[in-house]
Amino acid sequence: MAIQATIIADPVPISSSSRISIRGGEQCFGSFVLKTRPRHLRLSNGGRVRARASLNADLKAVGIPHQWYNLVADLSVKPPPPLHPKTFEPVKPEDLSPLFPDELIKQEASTEKFIDIPEEVLDIYSLWRPTPLIRAKRLEKLLNTPARIYYKYEGVSPAGSHKPNTAVPQAFYNAQQGIKNVVTETGAGQWGCSLAFACSLFGLDCEVWQVRASYDQKPYRRLMMETWGAKVHPSPSSITETGRKILQMDPSSPGSLGIAISEAVEVAAANADTKYCLGSVLNHVLLHQTVIGEECIKQMEAIGETPDVIIGCTGGGSNFAGLSFPFIREKLNGKINPVIKAVEPAACPSLTKGVYAYDYGDTAGMTPLMKMHTLGHDFIPDPIHSGGLRYHGMAPLISHVYELGFMEAMAIPQIECFQGAIQFARSEGLIPAPEPTHAIAATIREALHCKETGEAKVILMAMCGHGHFDLKSYEKFLQGEMVDLSFDEERIRASLAKVPQVTRI
Amino acid sequence: MAIQATIIADPVPISSSSRISIRGGEQCFGSFVLKTRPRHLRLSNGGRVRARASLNADLKAVGIPHQWYNLVADLSVKPPPPLHPKTFEPVKPEDLSPLFPDELIKQEASTEKFIDIPEEVLDIYSLWRPTPLIRAKRLEKLLNTPARIYYKYEGVSPAGSHKPNTAVPQAFYNAQQGIKNVVTETGAGQWGCSLAFACSLFGLDCEVWQVRASYDQKPYRRLMMETWGAKVHPSPSSITETGRKILQMDPSSPGSLGIAISEAVEVAAANADTKYCLGSVLNHVLLHQTVIGEECIKQMEAIGETPDVIIGCTGGGSNFAGLSFPFIREKLNGKINPVIKAVEPAACPSLTKGVYAYDYGDTAGMTPLMKMHTLGHDFIPDPIHSGGLRYHGMAPLISHVYELGFMEAMAIPQIECFQGAIQFARSEGLIPAPEPTHAIAATIREALHCKETGEAKVILMAMCGHGHFDLKSYEKFLQGEMVDLSFDEERIRASLAKVPQVTRI
Repeated sequence: MAIQATIIADPVPISSSSRISIRGGEQCFGSFVLKTRPRHLRLSNGGRVRARASLNADLKAVGIPHQWYNLVADLSVKPPPPLHPKTFEPVKPEDLSPLFPDELIKQEASTEKFIDIPEEVLDIYSLWRPTPLIRAKRLEKLLNTPARIYYKYEGVSPAGSHKPNTAVPQAFYNAQQGIKNVVTETGAGQWGCSLAFACSLFGLDCEVWQVRASYDQKPYRRLMMETWGAKVHPSPSSITETGRKILQMDPSSPGSLGIAISEAVEVAAANADTKYCLGSVLNHVLLHQTVIGEECIKQMEAIGETPDVIIGCTGGGSNFAGLSFPFIREKLNGKINPVIKAVEPAACPSLTKGVYAYDYGDTAGMTPLMKMHTLGHDFIPDPIHSGGLRYHGMAPLISHVYELGFMEAMAIPQIECFQGAIQFARSEGLIPAPEPTHAIAATIREALHCKETGEAKVILMAMCGHGHFDLKSYEKFLQGEMVDLSFDEERIRASLAKVPQVTRI
Repeated sequence: MAIQATIIADPVPISSSSRISIRGGEQCFGSFVLKTRPRHLRLSNGGRVRARASLNADLKAVGIPHQWYNLVADLSVKPPPPLHPKTFEPVKPEDLSPLFPDELIKQEASTEKFIDIPEEVLDIYSLWRPTPLIRAKRLEKLLNTPARIYYKYEGVSPAGSHKPNTAVPQAFYNAQQGIKNVVTETGAGQWGCSLAFACSLFGLDCEVWQVRASYDQKPYRRLMMETWGAKVHPSPSSITETGRKILQMDPSSPGSLGIAISEAVEVAAANADTKYCLGSVLNHVLLHQTVIGEECIKQMEAIGETPDVIIGCTGGGSNFAGLSFPFIREKLNGKINPVIKAVEPAACPSLTKGVYAYDYGDTAGMTPLMKMHTLGHDFIPDPIHSGGLRYHGMAPLISHVYELGFMEAMAIPQIECFQGAIQFARSEGLIPAPEPTHAIAATIREALHCKETGEAKVILMAMCGHGHFDLKSYEKFLQGEMVDLSFDEERIRASLAKVPQVTRI
């Protein structure tokens, strides 16, 4: 199986510290420093209307949005382009075609403001969309806060998270182009499940490389993928060159997301009828997720509420972007003026402690260079329970928006997150996945702050998935065995030293 | 801990074959025969209107019903009363008060047609209700049937099934009466989870006796209960006299639902501030579940459809009653005329192979005698994967309605059920719990029959819960290791011989 994708051939050595020059209006990075606080713009409060909230039938009558929203169109400063890992030139569409169908490549680089959601995708969205916007009245009461807390709940999807919002269109565009087989990687399995689900509805074959540690220890999401007909390989596998190489060095390798990505990408690149799907980070993934925010804007309007604070957790960033980007548009238009907060784990704080620089999306350095907040592509975060937030980087578009000052970021350790999750589960009834517990913990902080100040702020929170397959984490917490993993600045300094240094001419 | 409940003191010996006389218009049962087919009435087709179906926003706008429906009010022949296990007199409210709060005892015997749902309950229902009514378009296409298939999906509740529909009001009425602690039994954990969820929202303590085999082998639902703050005991436990007695005889007893019921009932009877909750069978449980059917009637009206066939699975019967009873009212009123089908496992066929007789609700013979279709109170069904359908009896009200000819029943073996479940999961995207796979298999049979006859029937199916915690069963099926457990007529004959024989004077 020869690797045909140019973008993964001969990447620049990942330990290189040479300065690389690109054209365009980018800042010079001579050396990296740990990120402190960026500046934050707050726009003036435009024609905001606030009415007393009451959830009612109107909310249920809000339909599914018919278009995705592309924030790039509304940004006066466009985000820097991804770079080819060999030539360091901006990536061209043909570089990506071994991996993605044409429509998704077009969306990846689109500057159109709205993109129509295909009928076939809307039809499947209607299985679980519109997702509920729920007022957390019992949590408010428990916290004794004057704040009004709302959460947008994506756990009602068949796979239990927001991920099918992009898995379905990705499967659709692949099927439309006559692709028979798609491949992807997955850690704990949220993304693999979502793609397996989407592929089963479009009659596509789906192969998933699952990090072996999860494959062996967390059988439930694997069984879910198999029930939907997907083929799941433990990674490293002997199916690929990458996998065989790793297994040769270490026959009992537990695998990593980086290795699993390499395996899936290798198979897609080597087979003309096979493409690769990614669950976060890329522009088109974030685009598909905006269905959450578009829907939520209509739902909040229907109940006469306007958010003062919008909070979501960030791993790769797709859930956060999905809820917040449409609200950022409203903010840019001066209609509303919420504070928008990304919450990341203290053990993997790419936005709050990383640098904004060109770096690889994967550990092995085979993907294009993307300008993003990164802890270094070979930074391996501690094994916290929020597997979905253990990514060294951040979606380039979120990173860009963060630099522009349209949002804030904070990091929270996992014990505080699980404390919040228990309060949430026992008052609101839903058991959150470990990832959204970060949004919950930040929401509780904000609500308690409102209690002190007496402000009746409206807090809107992204509750991106349920924790049905994460109950072992809850057990650990309830038994007092969970620990906060301290953030090791030295380790990050070491990993940042290996980020390629790119300066403009 | 002295047992105070008169209804569990000195029950009639369970091996008794003496004839017991009661007043009232009941048939004489001199001896029992295995059940064949009852007569089935089909009412004339009243002013039915059928329009081409299109799911639309109207459906989403349907609100939550504000009243439960009590089918008893509309039956010209009332169901026979439960009998005291000691006196064989109809049970009096005061007999039940050690176990249930007054409001539920009132509902148990009510002949009111509609009962208002309290605001506090509606408020919590709104977390997941109205539940989706979904047209199974992709399943229809897969089966190439002219039938239109709809399913009412209750798996969106926080506990993942229809059970919270009754757990919430049961917790509410207990809290309202000042009760501090409720107890119950659970097998795999669906019911225990639902009650734990409901109790956490009302600040009630909740103790669950879980059959030890499930407690040890299926930790996920136990962890879910603990996350909601419930205390879960493996049953048999050393906490109760019943448990200690069993453990004395067999220290490694795997437990049974019958034992777990006895333990929970014993604790409730012995403590004035503690009541017992049951997840199915009783009239008030079925009443609470009618929120499903009431909602569904409005949803079907909104899309201009009228069901020709209504299909649900039956264990204790609450899911089935919940969907079908309001439709039976419409049928009695001559408005519609659907065939209504209960589907049970071939390994536990109480409606299709049992007798209609007074029998105990539990294995030990401690509960009141209820007239119901039963396989004998000491019949222990094979360990099929649909744990929720492994009950020797049937809700007395369903049994009565079945005898009146308003519904039909059928039994399906588990391999056919899982075949249907895989077809459903891979076309509709939702992975069903093992229980509703029975409804799915029956629906597929019906849809394939329509394909033969060319009839475009409207089939409405109860999809009562998701299978997130049952994926091991799917694994077994996918690996070809599932077997159909044959129904042993001899074993049932033996167990029926121990059903107390009750004749009228």
